Amino acid sequence: MKKSDIDAFYADPASLDRQKYIVLNYYLETLIDPHEAAAHLCQEMSTAQWSRVGVNEDYRPEFGAKVVRLEVLDDQAPPSSPYLVAAMGSSAARVFRVDVVIWYPYHNFGTKIPNLLTAVCGEGVFHTPNICAIRLLDIDFPESFLADFQGPQFGVEGLREMLGVRDRPLLFGVIKPNVGLAPAPFAQLGFEAWLGGLDVAKDDEQLGDVAWSSVEERSHRLGALRKRAEELTGEKKVYLCNITDEVDRLVELHDIAVKNGANAVMVNGMAAGFSAVRMLRKHARVPIVSHFDFMAPFIQLPWFGVKDQVFTKIQRMAGFDVLIYPGFDSRLKTSKEDVLANARACLQPLGSLKPMLPVPAGSQWAGSLQPLYETLGTVDFGIVPGRAVFGHPQGPRGGAASLRQGWEAVRKGVSLEEHARVHEELRLAIEMQRK
Amino acid sequence: MKKSDIDAFYADPASLDRQKYIVLNYYLETLIDPHEAAAHLCQEMSTAQWSRVGVNEDYRPEFGAKVVRLEVLDDQAPPSSPYLVAAMGSSAARVFRVDVVIWYPYHNFGTKIPNLLTAVCGEGVFHTPNICAIRLLDIDFPESFLADFQGPQFGVEGLREMLGVRDRPLLFGVIKPNVGLAPAPFAQLGFEAWLGGLDVAKDDEQLGDVAWSSVEERSHRLGALRKRAEELTGEKKVYLCNITDEVDRLVELHDIAVKNGANAVMVNGMAAGFSAVRMLRKHARVPIVSHFDFMAPFIQLPWFGVKDQVFTKIQRMAGFDVLIYPGFDSRLKTSKEDVLANARACLQPLGSLKPMLPVPAGSQWAGSLQPLYETLGTVDFGIVPGRAVFGHPQGPRGGAASLRQGWEAVRKGVSLEEHARVHEELRLAIEMQRK
Repeated sequence: MKKSDIDAFYADPASLDRQKYIVLNYYLETLIDPHEAAAHLCQEMSTAQWSRVGVNEDYRPEFGAKVVRLEVLDDQAPPSSPYLVAAMGSSAARVFRVDVVIWYPYHNFGTKIPNLLTAVCGEGVFHTPNICAIRLLDIDFPESFLADFQGPQFGVEGLREMLGVRDRPLLFGVIKPNVGLAPAPFAQLGFEAWLGGLDVAKDDEQLGDVAWSSVEERSHRLGALRKRAEELTGEKKVYLCNITDEVDRLVELHDIAVKNGANAVMVNGMAAGFSAVRMLRKHARVPIVSHFDFMAPFIQLPWFGVKDQVFTKIQRMAGFDVLIYPGFDSRLKTSKEDVLANARACLQPLGSLKPMLPVPAGSQWAGSLQPLYETLGTVDFGIVPGRAVFGHPQGPRGGAASLRQGWEAVRKGVSLEEHARVHEELRLAIEMQRK
Repeated sequence: MKKSDIDAFYADPASLDRQKYIVLNYYLETLIDPHEAAAHLCQEMSTAQWSRVGVNEDYRPEFGAKVVRLEVLDDQAPPSSPYLVAAMGSSAARVFRVDVVIWYPYHNFGTKIPNLLTAVCGEGVFHTPNICAIRLLDIDFPESFLADFQGPQFGVEGLREMLGVRDRPLLFGVIKPNVGLAPAPFAQLGFEAWLGGLDVAKDDEQLGDVAWSSVEERSHRLGALRKRAEELTGEKKVYLCNITDEVDRLVELHDIAVKNGANAVMVNGMAAGFSAVRMLRKHARVPIVSHFDFMAPFIQLPWFGVKDQVFTKIQRMAGFDVLIYPGFDSRLKTSKEDVLANARACLQPLGSLKPMLPVPAGSQWAGSLQPLYETLGTVDFGIVPGRAVFGHPQGPRGGAASLRQGWEAVRKGVSLEEHARVHEELRLAIEMQRK
């Protein structure tokens, strides 16, 4: 690129109207001068060609993405992916590692999720010449952009209101066997877990509307037993029905589930598409919960793809009330920093949108509550065990009871082991973990 | 896992009904015995818990994914991502590299795209313990599964019919300046390119329905000029309108564009969601074209994510007629093998679904035709230059003419340079490349 063309993709943010720009923070690795690489990135992701042949015009001032800050983190680093360097036809052994902040004029595409994704993680971003690794680390939206999004209908406060639970984390449980079990015995498991103290009995992310367990029948059975459990326990309960399906069936399945007594619905956000959730939100009468399938290739590598908090913000804007996402378990290959950043993105101010409940998932049990509470520094979170409830030696009633006992121990400030001396369910839960 | 539990996730395919299973081929790296790792993968992606506590039952035979073939490629390989190994809490310096074929009973989720993606690239797949890298390499569907999908409405033959072009590749061009130009001058560029010989004038993937260039006005202007270009050239032409937007607007925007004279629509498939395209297909009256935004993090690394041909098959099933995808240009960081595999996935038999036109993209010009024709071994493909048409020194008319001249050279078996001696547009196109 010519120097004047490079310069045209740089700007002093003080000269720009903040309300017109989305702020993007990328990590990138490049083979060439970082200033040129970042300018080329802006070109590819916005005004690829900024004038007609033979016409004296320039669309960059109004439509070009602009670098507002660039920091070279390392100018002699080994490439994170020698494969991608080679795939670009280079044999470079050293690259620049760069942290760059770009302001992107969103009137290029408007307040639409698919077009946003195209602009900030589309062809331009991942196929700029001489950039051999790139990751979108964070995104910030001006109030004017956020104002077009509904966000959570219920949010954390709405969920607490529904459940009448104010002072502790919310206890979700994934009914198991997750796949194959007919609706009647499946509903019975949820019922027992509610009696034991579970707040939210939920379908597995793999269980949708299928011939052997239709949403119609499943929600009917669980809806009826939910009301019975509420009568017996004097507590409010939630049945979270997984309505993940083709996007033109989401509204219909929501209506069937809610009519039958489901009082929350789950959609695997990335698999159905965030835009489909935004559509459902306009219609929904119950909280909507996201599950993180189909997202791992974007989020797992620290030098590549998209950091999860970007998707967390977008999912909150789309209208999810609860976000189930990869948590601290080593199986989930997510850094502690990322899990925390995600929780913050759920709870921190985002325009006037309500907070979304973070549920950092991963092979949880009663003993997960204390470390989660300490790490997150709030009771505004959920846990979502499966086997710890539904594989408990006493069955789901005992499993759910062990969760409540686990929280009692935290509340009283006693060790799990000490509390387990007088709580058989918790004792068995600890034993189960030791196996 | 106990040996009997591992064995329960293995099967002889001869004992299974092929029509009930999707065939999945994964590459994976694992820290432990590959046979156990593959069994655990099947468990996580299907029947995580296969019986209720205290009930003598087993859902694995009917609902479990099953390993039918496993090959250890290397038992002492360095991990492709030491980061992911460490993120799992291990310091292993050597891993097993494994190629595994799994049969997955699709009645677990039915013939629905979001649920398919959840099953084959969801939480289970990317978060199985002790698997530190995994890539879905290929997917094959039984006829019974494919029968529920409409596939392309027009396909390659339908497009050729529309254009009256039988014996050569189809020439697409991305109108540039891609972002910022008002509809009237934008349409004029498309018009000139059609006159020069372009078949399909298309919107950039970043140009949607925006205040400064609404689909209503853009399609109106380009629709009218398309008809005029057809009269003047005696050739059929296509205006490909990018209607990528929130999913609940796709049908509406399709209707506006088609009413106004657009005769094909583009949707950025992954960004809008494949399921949204399947919805649009039911309603569409013109060919639907996919652009590959938001897909790179899945497809770029050879040991991670999902190989593009998997998405190609799914997009063909969803109903796309044309697939624009990362081609041979080094900017696109895609191996030659992958580009070819994708073209095959577009054209080869897939149930009774029509073939989809492959358009391997990437900084193309007249000189791209010969190598593409040779490599693909067919004229059933498209090219999609931007600057080579709309940045040509003589403008889009000259740029488009240079493409036709480029193909004439191929057809006559003469070199580009020789043909350029009597074709000024081609001569200038060659000069442009040398800069």
